Amino acid sequence: MDFLVRIETSRVSALPAEEYRDLLAREWARGQELHAQGILRTLWRVPGYQGNVGLWSARDADELAEALQSLPIWPLVTAEVTPLATHPLMTRIGQA
Amino acid sequence: MDFLVRIETSRVSALPAEEYRDLLAREWARGQELHAQGILRTLWRVPGYQGNVGLWSARDADELAEALQSLPIWPLVTAEVTPLATHPLMTRIGQA
Amino acid sequence: MDFLVRIETSRVSALPAEEYRDLLAREWARGQELHAQGILRTLWRVPGYQGNVGLWSARDADELAEALQSLPIWPLVTAEVTPLATHPLMTRIGQA
Amino acid sequence: MDFLVRIETSRVSALPAEEYRDLLAREWARGQELHAQGILRTLWRVPGYQGNVGLWSARDADELAEALQSLPIWPLVTAEVTPLATHPLMTRIGQA
Amino acid sequence: MDFLVRIETSRVSALPAEEYRDLLAREWARGQELHAQGILRTLWRVPGYQGNVGLWSARDADELAEALQSLPIWPLVTAEVTPLATHPLMTRIGQA
Amino acid sequence: MDFLVRIETSRVSALPAEEYRDLLAREWARGQELHAQGILRTLWRVPGYQGNVGLWSARDADELAEALQSLPIWPLVTAEVTPLATHPLMTRIGQA
Amino acid sequence: MDFLVRIETSRVSALPAEEYRDLLAREWARGQELHAQGILRTLWRVPGYQGNVGLWSARDADELAEALQSLPIWPLVTAEVTPLATHPLMTRIGQA
Amino acid sequence: MDFLVRIETSRVSALPAEEYRDLLAREWARGQELHAQGILRTLWRVPGYQGNVGLWSARDADELAEALQSLPIWPLVTAEVTPLATHPLMTRIGQA
Amino acid sequence: MDFLVRIETSRVSALPAEEYRDLLAREWARGQELHAQGILRTLWRVPGYQGNVGLWSARDADELAEALQSLPIWPLVTAEVTPLATHPLMTRIGQA
Amino acid sequence: MDFLVRIETSRVSALPAEEYRDLLAREWARGQELHAQGILRTLWRVPGYQGNVGLWSARDADELAEALQSLPIWPLVTAEVTPLATHPLMTRIGQA
Repeated sequence: MDFLVRIETSRVSALPAEEYRDLLAREWARGQELHAQGILRTLWRVPGYQGNVGLWSARDADELAEALQSLPIWPLVTAEVTPLATHPLMTRIGQA
Repeated sequence: MDFLVRIETSRVSALPAEEYRDLLAREWARGQELHAQGILRTLWRVPGYQGNVGLWSARDADELAEALQSLPIWPLVTAEVTPLATHPLMTRIGQA
Repeated sequence: MDFLVRIETSRVSALPAEEYRDLLAREWARGQELHAQGILRTLWRVPGYQGNVGLWSARDADELAEALQSLPIWPLVTAEVTPLATHPLMTRIGQA
Repeated sequence: MDFLVRIETSRVSALPAEEYRDLLAREWARGQELHAQGILRTLWRVPGYQGNVGLWSARDADELAEALQSLPIWPLVTAEVTPLATHPLMTRIGQA
Repeated sequence: MDFLVRIETSRVSALPAEEYRDLLAREWARGQELHAQGILRTLWRVPGYQGNVGLWSARDADELAEALQSLPIWPLVTAEVTPLATHPLMTRIGQA
Repeated sequence: MDFLVRIETSRVSALPAEEYRDLLAREWARGQELHAQGILRTLWRVPGYQGNVGLWSARDADELAEALQSLPIWPLVTAEVTPLATHPLMTRIGQA
Repeated sequence: MDFLVRIETSRVSALPAEEYRDLLAREWARGQELHAQGILRTLWRVPGYQGNVGLWSARDADELAEALQSLPIWPLVTAEVTPLATHPLMTRIGQA
Repeated sequence: MDFLVRIETSRVSALPAEEYRDLLAREWARGQELHAQGILRTLWRVPGYQGNVGLWSARDADELAEALQSLPIWPLVTAEVTPLATHPLMTRIGQA
Repeated sequence: MDFLVRIETSRVSALPAEEYRDLLAREWARGQELHAQGILRTLWRVPGYQGNVGLWSARDADELAEALQSLPIWPLVTAEVTPLATHPLMTRIGQA
Repeated sequence: MDFLVRIETSRVSALPAEEYRDLLAREWARGQELHAQGILRTLWRVPGYQGNVGLWSARDADELAEALQSLPIWPLVTAEVTPLATHPLMTRIGQA
């Protein structure tokens, strides 16, 4: 199942510089693992937004919840999750 | 009476690790008591949400207020409570 | 997968009486079918709210989208869908 | 159980004058019945607000839902319901 | 004049325990004085809400502002005040 | 007592031209009466806003509610009323 | 440039059935053209939401505005557009 | 004085085609006059938004209110006006 | 030009008592200067609101911005500014 | 591509005075660089608002994101970015 996930990280950005750099390094390492597992499919920055928007895939809400809670930044963030369903236009085009 | 209760816990997640673990252990112990009393009927996580959604049952608002304020995390959370009434469709189906 | 679904129906309630009664009859018939299929698990009224709150289960977002769009009232409503994940407390209690 | 109920009636006020007068007459008649039954305890206007705020009492959410849906204006309104619990200060003062 | 007053106290609940108990004791003492003066007529808890809802009466906005600012918790709270006007239905029923 | 009153009139502006002109004429006539009685003290436009902001004075919420409901545009508008209390700085300056 | 576009279509769904079918057919035809041009890259349904979420690509805001305004449903919808920037994690993974 | 003005026109877009074309022609004619007078300095579309964002200049709020109310679309729109003040950085750069 | 200014001061109220008293004294001194200059015309408290509502006059947005930023409490507050235009009713009554 | 960027800086204003002055000096230096590069075209203050509104230009969202994240105040702010498209009226007037 696909999910659109918008993670707000303003409390992370406001950390002292060194703590921020360490947390970001651990976060990116975990991000690469999730990407390799096909759970984190792609990620974008939104200009001006303290956070990111990403396309995630998981068997179900449990797997997605586990993945999000495995992020080192998890205790300091809030994430808005939108479940995505196939659009019939894409099925017609053959790209579902 | 049934209530849908959405508890937001972002201030709990941001606690120092040890304090968080201790509070969570006490919280789960209390949760099990409330579940045994039939007040906390079931609980879900919402992927990405710092908190939970649950189905609670109480004689009235007083009993629900007492139960929520008995939670060790209570001073740090806010909870949105929606009173639930029987739906006539469920009465017709015989599942009210 | 479980979903909490809050359906707002103020545009349905405002229909002329006869049209409302006919639509409601067809809606309840469809509701019973979805309940029999285990997709609509339970439904509540919320006092004062023009709509309902329900617990739905579906293989994934596609099946849920199809079920919601199969409701006769669908063109006149908006629904807020919250994906639900198992809570570890319920797993510990053995009720996940 | 006590409930604070805020009923928004802007769609009622916008009805053609005659239809409005007839609906209001039926609404007040029903209001008096509910007051006599002790369900509608008191009602206030809020200056500038198209609607009212009231203190309602009911055995539970079912009885409150039935009472609200019995109002002639029900199909055209939305109501925000807040369950009220006893405050310990009032218990101490002896006025709970 | 009657006012519906909703006081949000999440910053009070988050105080260290001892400071909280002391502030609460002073707050209840002041509450009892205001109740004795007929300014604080009644107070409710709202299950899950860090705060309270109350019915206050004062000559005018000045007297209400003074009463609210006299509360020991005042510097840490925000209050939403709704002026209440008599409802003609209550006048008709003779309970205005 | 003084009140800040923000009246939103977008449903009035959208009326057919002739109906709008007639309603506006009656509205201004009533406005002049309320001004003469000292209830409507002053009125401003807000550039771009379909409505107005005004300073109103009334004995209490009842008198203000009556005045607002006496406006010919009343059935089509919503008004946000803020009760105003004397500011100690103005008392010190002698302008309260 | 990539954009996340959330199009709300509740006014379209509420059209009379025949008008809706005709508009939808023209809309899907236009959607296929935009997809063929690489402007509409992919589209999802969101269960319960009257509308869609899609990934669009355009040279700049002008091209995106033209594409959205070319949709037959355009006069009846509102769209929320979020510009997307490359995320450094994806650059590191080599998937930007 | 400069103002940032965001005009929402969804009620205009939903007009019948012919009425829309006529209104738009009159609107653009008026827009060109205001631009020639230096009141409407520049205008942008926002992709997906039913309306526009513009930079307006006027002696004061009165002149701006008159200009906005002179727009043929005025009765069907709402506009959000933000007064703009010189930024000291621009003064330093010599571009205020 | 007149402006309605709503200043929110909850971060000021939460200061330690002594720091609060000192800041308030400097704030009132500055307030009296601005009042004497005719920039701060009048100020009200809003019962329950941590802040104030005031009527300010300034040549333009620059002068208003300077005046607000000259307030000792400025770094800890946010202010909502509404530009006010003359209302034709007041011009007709001769009170514009 | 042009963007309207609204940067909220209340966490910057609340810094200790010295830290604030140092950060502001570095911020203005960076602002002048961005202005010289044509990325930051112009900037306004909004009376009462802890932040600024500006007109920015960048090849695409990536360049804008980099520019915003290069600001010394970036870790403490949030920015709302609106992509701007040419308005046909300006094209007609020859000012696009």
